[in-house]
Amino acid sequence: MTTFQRIVLASRPTGEATLENFRLETVEVPELKDGEVLVRNEYLTVDPYMRSLMNEGKSYMPPVQLNATMAGGTVGEVVASKNPTFDTSEVPLQAYLGVVGMPGMTAWYGLNQIMVPKPGETVVVSAASGAVGSVVGQLAKLKGCRVAGIAGGKEKCDYVVNELGFDACVDYKAGKLAADLAAATPDGIDAVFENVGGPVLDASLARMNPFGRIAVCGLIAGYNGEPVPVNNFSAVLVMRLTMRGFIVGEHMEFWPQGLNELAMLVACGKLKYRETIAQDLANAPEAFLGLLKGKNFGKQLVKLTR
Amino acid sequence: MTTFQRIVLASRPTGEATLENFRLETVEVPELKDGEVLVRNEYLTVDPYMRSLMNEGKSYMPPVQLNATMAGGTVGEVVASKNPTFDTSEVPLQAYLGVVGMPGMTAWYGLNQIMVPKPGETVVVSAASGAVGSVVGQLAKLKGCRVAGIAGGKEKCDYVVNELGFDACVDYKAGKLAADLAAATPDGIDAVFENVGGPVLDASLARMNPFGRIAVCGLIAGYNGEPVPVNNFSAVLVMRLTMRGFIVGEHMEFWPQGLNELAMLVACGKLKYRETIAQDLANAPEAFLGLLKGKNFGKQLVKLTR
Repeated sequence: MTTFQRIVLASRPTGEATLENFRLETVEVPELKDGEVLVRNEYLTVDPYMRSLMNEGKSYMPPVQLNATMAGGTVGEVVASKNPTFDTSEVPLQAYLGVVGMPGMTAWYGLNQIMVPKPGETVVVSAASGAVGSVVGQLAKLKGCRVAGIAGGKEKCDYVVNELGFDACVDYKAGKLAADLAAATPDGIDAVFENVGGPVLDASLARMNPFGRIAVCGLIAGYNGEPVPVNNFSAVLVMRLTMRGFIVGEHMEFWPQGLNELAMLVACGKLKYRETIAQDLANAPEAFLGLLKGKNFGKQLVKLTR
Repeated sequence: MTTFQRIVLASRPTGEATLENFRLETVEVPELKDGEVLVRNEYLTVDPYMRSLMNEGKSYMPPVQLNATMAGGTVGEVVASKNPTFDTSEVPLQAYLGVVGMPGMTAWYGLNQIMVPKPGETVVVSAASGAVGSVVGQLAKLKGCRVAGIAGGKEKCDYVVNELGFDACVDYKAGKLAADLAAATPDGIDAVFENVGGPVLDASLARMNPFGRIAVCGLIAGYNGEPVPVNNFSAVLVMRLTMRGFIVGEHMEFWPQGLNELAMLVACGKLKYRETIAQDLANAPEAFLGLLKGKNFGKQLVKLTR
């Protein structure tokens, strides 16, 4: 193992991101220093937040520089080490990139620290079949909530209800989101996990009960740079709502507790997940762009080794 | 005192409210029952929230019914009593409708329970010369914050800076709100007290620092029923903001502490306020409609007795 491959940001997108914005490079493995380990990566995760790091200017993390590596989470095997620390694993390796990793913790934090739903309350989750939304809804069901998802297409909605156990799932592609969400939430909405923004958030705002809580995890509707106004903002005042944006990496103090709970739920079969796996680093940009359009089904991963 | 006057809701507004929506009536004083007192009201307060109660449908309080009294806060003298409870007063009577009443408590609650600013942080207050905004800014100055107001016109802005002691005040009528607010908040914004919504809120959102707090007290820009979209909503995610709408009447547990603090600050001259006083109940609708257009200067009251 003397060389490795990486994807760099070749150019910044204007509007929608394209394959031309990325470039695959082969570079030499640097010499190992004290405290470092050399990891042979087996899986790469691609996630929606990466799109916002491709833009120049102010975001919640510094943008990726041109010709710099598009960094992403990986799991793999330590093949050389100048560091005495070890890890043991009790769940499948790639789950550490999903349900027992950053996406799972994102779901756990938003639900337990922002939405704080009581048994019997109604919870709505957008991007419900995705790596984060699927965990939010299952955790909310375990708390005794009524849970309605929002997802794109009949196949995903069927999975959300039949496999994940949500009470209902609304297909936003069916063209009558407001009416369908109203039917799925007869008692109104007490807490929302928002991954999308724009018209999807507006549909939830129109159904909020007094003192509702909205965890703002992602606004994927606006990641290509177009403005996505919120039209039903007055609900924040009228219904005395609390909305909070968050990034789970800023709340590391909750990770040991959260990851422990998530790993136990996976181990005993109470937390299901699904993966879409692309093969080879060279196909990571295509997998990532597909993710932004909802082509994946569950956590999108890239298998780096054969 | 055998009759009294009242203003009733004659019709619901379509768009902007007009004088024709109100009607002045003279009715008989009912017989006093055990536990009741008869009050000769001296002052009536008119406040922006009343506008939303004129619309039919879901709001944070039940709408006023047609031909029912447009209720409002009053202070006056007890002229007959079948109730042994008494009150003593240490501040001017009408201050209980303003700085030591609901508007003052609204400011106190939003600042101390939602915005929670630290010394040195930058606080922005919209409708800064009004009954609520003027108190928010003065309390924030007492906490050692940098405070920028937003108000309509040079006269109000001068008052906010020179009399109330804000560090800066931006005139939204000058037509370059975003640039002027940027100049007034060189270190960004850490906490906002929002009374207006729409473009005023968007200007603040564009300047927020990470982990900023926004207390949503009013959205007067939308009270006539027109939609007022929020275009810079992505700041909630990017800057990990917390926004919370509130109605101070739902938090009565804080009133004794808050009113005590406000009364002491008024008594020792550290909390200034200004009033615009209309004469006679018959002129209450006009005073109220003027308030919605910012014609008042400080707390709008109606003097009921001569």
